[in-house]
This record gives sequence, structure tokens and C-alpha cells, in this order.
Amino acid sequence: MRILNFSEAEYTSRLHRVKARMADAGLDVLVITEPANIYYLSGYDAWSFYTVQALVIFQDVELPLWIGRLVDSATAHITSYLPVDRIIPYPDVYVQAADRHASQFIADAILRESPSVKTVGVEMGAYYYTARDHAEFLKAMPNVRFKDAELLVNWVRFVKSAEEVAYMREAGVITERMMARAVEVAAPGVRECDVAAVIYHAQMTGTASFGGVPATSPPHMGFGPRAREAHPIFSDRPIAPNSVANIEISGCRLRYHAPMSRSIYFGKPPQSYSDLASHVIEGIEASLDVVRPGSTCEELELAWRKTLSVHGIEKDSRLGYSIGVAYTPTWGERTASIRRGDRTVLQTGVAFHLMAGLWLEDTGITITQSFIVTEDGYEPLTKSARELIVKD
Amino acid sequence: MRILNFSEAEYTSRLHRVKARMADAGLDVLVITEPANIYYLSGYDAWSFYTVQALVIFQDVELPLWIGRLVDSATAHITSYLPVDRIIPYPDVYVQAADRHASQFIADAILRESPSVKTVGVEMGAYYYTARDHAEFLKAMPNVRFKDAELLVNWVRFVKSAEEVAYMREAGVITERMMARAVEVAAPGVRECDVAAVIYHAQMTGTASFGGVPATSPPHMGFGPRAREAHPIFSDRPIAPNSVANIEISGCRLRYHAPMSRSIYFGKPPQSYSDLASHVIEGIEASLDVVRPGSTCEELELAWRKTLSVHGIEKDSRLGYSIGVAYTPTWGERTASIRRGDRTVLQTGVAFHLMAGLWLEDTGITITQSFIVTEDGYEPLTKSARELIVKD
Repeated sequence: MRILNFSEAEYTSRLHRVKARMADAGLDVLVITEPANIYYLSGYDAWSFYTVQALVIFQDVELPLWIGRLVDSATAHITSYLPVDRIIPYPDVYVQAADRHASQFIADAILRESPSVKTVGVEMGAYYYTARDHAEFLKAMPNVRFKDAELLVNWVRFVKSAEEVAYMREAGVITERMMARAVEVAAPGVRECDVAAVIYHAQMTGTASFGGVPATSPPHMGFGPRAREAHPIFSDRPIAPNSVANIEISGCRLRYHAPMSRSIYFGKPPQSYSDLASHVIEGIEASLDVVRPGSTCEELELAWRKTLSVHGIEKDSRLGYSIGVAYTPTWGERTASIRRGDRTVLQTGVAFHLMAGLWLEDTGITITQSFIVTEDGYEPLTKSARELIVKD
Repeated sequence: MRILNFSEAEYTSRLHRVKARMADAGLDVLVITEPANIYYLSGYDAWSFYTVQALVIFQDVELPLWIGRLVDSATAHITSYLPVDRIIPYPDVYVQAADRHASQFIADAILRESPSVKTVGVEMGAYYYTARDHAEFLKAMPNVRFKDAELLVNWVRFVKSAEEVAYMREAGVITERMMARAVEVAAPGVRECDVAAVIYHAQMTGTASFGGVPATSPPHMGFGPRAREAHPIFSDRPIAPNSVANIEISGCRLRYHAPMSRSIYFGKPPQSYSDLASHVIEGIEASLDVVRPGSTCEELELAWRKTLSVHGIEKDSRLGYSIGVAYTPTWGERTASIRRGDRTVLQTGVAFHLMAGLWLEDTGITITQSFIVTEDGYEPLTKSARELIVKD
């Protein structure tokens, strides 16, 4: 049994692009630990990254090595395109043990495959590459030069293929359904967790033709006074009348994301809050107007900032970030950000979440838009109207 | 507005126990980055750990410092017991930026508070303490001696208070409901993702008197030939007749967990599979018979192993692990494991997931039991019958 979400040709093309960057960076070997990067390059897909695992790419050997825990190797055989002899399991004595560490096992496997290896790249700031993982690596390979290769693969992921865009569109459809269900169910007196329940239900059922999987993150939902918070967890308290709810969610299709936020007002919103919503929407439109190949990230931010400053509003946090394939804890790709000083140039096939959330002293508002850059502009990944939703 | 899940007295008692261990370890300062440890010691609860954050404990200063991203500081004010002046936000320019790193900001805050600090503990192997976070720390505090303090707080968490046990019992009730819904809905022809949908729905709605939050991990569900996998993700394929499904889930109450796995057979199970289930259940009973204060983890494993070896069955992976409060990516506490060589002594108030899963060449079976150790034995955290569930 083998389940691949992409063609072998696509995996091969991704691998070649990574090897080209490895050559530029002078790397003999690249040790990939970020789960999204492992999935992107091999197909391997399991919730196993809480123990040490790696995909190791050798410049001089055609295929990578998957190295992970024995009980998860069946998943490597089933979900990756790698042949049996490129899947190397370590025994369970290495799991969360005080007396040994799986980095030693991985180092041994690298040295067996490539005894004369000189330069090894590691993803220094990647999730699940802990300080200890790295320290044990250094000890186990004392004659090797380590280089930081964080984001090397993430930047290869920056431009999406047609197959990836198709999954992101499907994720967007799921996102719309999740939000529609939330809006339908949320009302004064309803518990926050019961709104979360229908969001999750819609996230998994997806549509009749394709299902979803969990996103990297729970719905970020801030109700009433907690609308000032950017990443709160919902509670089992009932929604209050004449209050606001910020809801940030993402559908997820085969690990591809298309996030969206909306604010819901329960009751008649005060004029000041309706005005705030109008200003945010105006800012988003101004920013989207600039989106096309050749524009830079900071130009998108500038268009927003100019528009908002007219109304005396300033946003402290970045206006958005690159999105695509992701594992917990974030659907951001950690490459380009829509903010002042980021001169990354947009091109066809890059994707962003324009995260125009404002978290202010006394309230907050979150109306956002995910999009893919196209040849002549952008394609929205979610089609829901950009508006303040009012349930009166 | 302030929302605390525990009394201030409980937070103070936890802090004192941590400071006692810091004294033993010779630490002036402890930088805590594991989200569950931050929550345990301060109450702070947000999905913000994808950017750098820390709770810093000073041996000579009464209260810790929370340091994190500006947009998340509102959550620190609302969910932690810390006063305003102990909450230090950093601006968004530190977020996923190439030219600066939040470890520098944290180091500056530590040196401001404690200019003569000599020894700083860090959680080297903790999730979200990346190799880069640590490297930047070393650079920013060149005159400080760093010591590995991984698991220092986790071991303080090992024995649960009465308040914690109460939350874990509630989590267990949610777990039972999640599994009951899965068993109700799962059937040949039903898509895997639609089973996941009802599991998630039940996880959030909880009961009429308390709601749930997402667990650290999605339901691990292996259907048919994928029952050989320990941590697979579900798909949108329909369940096949005459097949097995392994489902591992956990209800979660205010970040406290009570996991459980069951296997479901759709159709009449082959005799060999029913026998396998009987052997596993027999092994679990044998292991539980040994549970009481004073027993060691390896004695629990030995009782299991002796029972299973009679039937020629061997389990490669550990038989269980300590549980309690947890954030993604795992509900295990990474302290004690039920396995050969682990001589941790059980005491009243410790909790484990007896994870008796077997992932074999051609199939798998997962029947498990979470429990709290009591004065004279144990209390099961889930009351569901330990059995192979058959839907014929």
C-alpha cells in the first residue's frame, strides 16, 4: 500500500531544487527536521515529530534517507515515495531517554552513508529542532562543519505548483464552510466551545468530494473583552449580548492551508466599531490593489498603512505572511512577511494571508484575506465577503 | 478581567517547588520555554508559542517575568496571575526576522533584572526551544554559565494536586464521550474524516456542565492496512468492511488530558485478532494489578511482558508514559516511561497512559488505559470497558 499526494515527478523536482540550493550553500548533507519540509520533500505524513526524526539529503546520493522511530516507519513506507532501503528506523530505547539521544543514531546513519562528509546543514530555528538535538549532533559528528540552513527548504516552498494551488483552493472552500457554520451557530447564550465544535466538524467533513484534516492551530477565538487578544483559546462561557467575537480559522486539505478571520457583532454594533471595520476593509482593498508579480511585500504594507493612517489607526504587528503546507504550531511559512522592510518580490504562485487583525486597548477586529498571486493580480483563496458580520 | 484556572496559592506552591529545585541545581535564573510549563507556573494560555516566549524565574525575585510578543501580552494580563509590571512584551520587529532575534530581547530583560546573574538554566530539549533560540542566547549573555534544566519543571508536575486530578477526571469524561460517538458513527462506507468530525465535535462540547478544548494531538486513526501505523492521519476514504480501526484520542479540559485508545472491528473479527485482543487486555490487567504507591515503572512493564510472552507477543515500544497538562505536540510529560529500566517509583497523584498498542507486520491493535495512582491502587481516568469493539 502506498498513498502519495503528489506525483513522483513533483517530489523529484522539489528535491532537485533543494539540491541546487545546497550546492550554492556549500552543503554535502542537509538534515531536515521541520515536519512540513519532510512532508514536502518525501510525502511522509504522521504525528510523529514529538520524537526526533529527520529527512537527510545527500548531495551525492540520489534519494534521501528517512530516519525516525520504529513504530512510525510503517507510515514512512506507506506515505513516502522512498524505497524500503531508504527508511531507517531507530529502536524505542532512544525515545525520551536520559541515557541516549536519537541525534546520535542519525549521525551514525549519515556517517555510514557518507563517511567523508564535511559540511552538514541543519535547520537551526525550525520547530522541533531543539537545542539539545543540535548539541547532541555536534558531539556525535565532531569533525563535521555545521551550517545553518534554516528556511532553505521553506524558500523552495515559496512558489506553489499547480497541484499545490489546487489543494489550497480546496482548503479555502473548507474554510468558507467552517466560518459559515460558526456564523450560523454563534449567538448570545451559546457557549464558545459549542461554536468551536461546529467549526471543527465542518473542518473535517469538508465537502462531499473531499475531506479535511486538522489545521496547524485551533480556531483563535476572542469573545467580548478577549477580542483584544491575538491567539486566545475559547472557553465554555456563554456569548454575551452586545459583544464582538473574533474568529481566525483555516481549512486544511492534505496539510495545505487557506486561513481567514472574521469578526461577528452580536447586537447592533456601535458606530465606532462599524467605522473601524470599514477602515480595515478599505485598507485590505488598498493592499490587494497592489498585489501582482513584481510588487514587494513592503509595498503591500505601505498601501495599507497609508489608508489606515488617514483614520489615525496604526497596526503594530505585521500585515501578513506566506502560507502553504504547514504542520503545527503555525500555518505561516516563516519566509516572507507583509511588513515594512520586507522587499521580497511577489511572483506568480506565491500565497499569503493578509492578516489585517487589529488588537487594540479595548477591543479588536479581524477581517482578513488569503490569496495566491496570479499573472495579472491575485486569486482570493476564500470567497466570503469581507465585512463585519452582524447578528442582531 | 482575569481568568485563572487555579488558585493563586496553588501557583505560589508550584513556584516554590521549582525554586527549591533551582537551588539544588545551582541556578540563579531559569528560562522556561515549554508551553505547558509556562501555563503550569503562571496560568498563561495562548497559541503563541510559534514565536519566541519565555517565563523567567529568578531565585532572588519573588515573581517571574513573562516575556513574549506584544500582540499576545493582553492574554498574559488576562490569563496569568502576574501583575502588570511582570509582563514584558517585545515589539513585532522580532518576529521571524532575519536581522534580529527575540532571545536577545529576553537576555536584555534578564540582565536588567539581575545584572550579576551567573548561572541560567534552559530547557535544552523542550519543544519550541530551538537550536537557534539557544545559540542567540549564548551570544547575548557571553558571561553567563548555561545549564541544562530540561524536565526540571516537568518533574515538579509529576505529582498532581487535587485540583489537577479533578480536571483530568473531567477530561476522562470527555474522552469517553468522544469514543462513544466514534463507535456510533464509524461503519463500512463512512468516510474516515466524518468519524473524526464527530470525535472533534464531542471533544469541544464536552458535557452540559463543562466544555473541552483541543488536545495536543489529532485523533490518531489507522484504518484497515494502516492499523499498522502508530500515528497516522485520517483520510477521506470510506471505511472498508471486514477491517479494523485503531483510534487513539484524548479529551482535554483546561489543557489536562486523559487519553484512551480502542480498536473497532467492522464485521466478524478473525479468531486470531480476537485472541490478540484478549492477550492485550490480559496484559493490561496484569500491569494494572501492580499499580500502587511504591511500585516502579519497570515493574508495571514486567507484569505486562510476562503475560504477553506466554502468547509469544513482544512489544517493541514503551508501555506508557506520564500524563497531565500538555500543549501540542504531545500529551506525554516526557518524564517517567513504563518500560524496562525505568525505576521511577509510583506515588499517590501521579498519572499515566498505559499505552498497550501493538503495531505488527500485518495489523495493529490499540486498547489502553489512563489512570491516577491512589493510596491503595489506582483510579481509572476513563471508565469505558477494555474490550475489542465489534460492529458486525
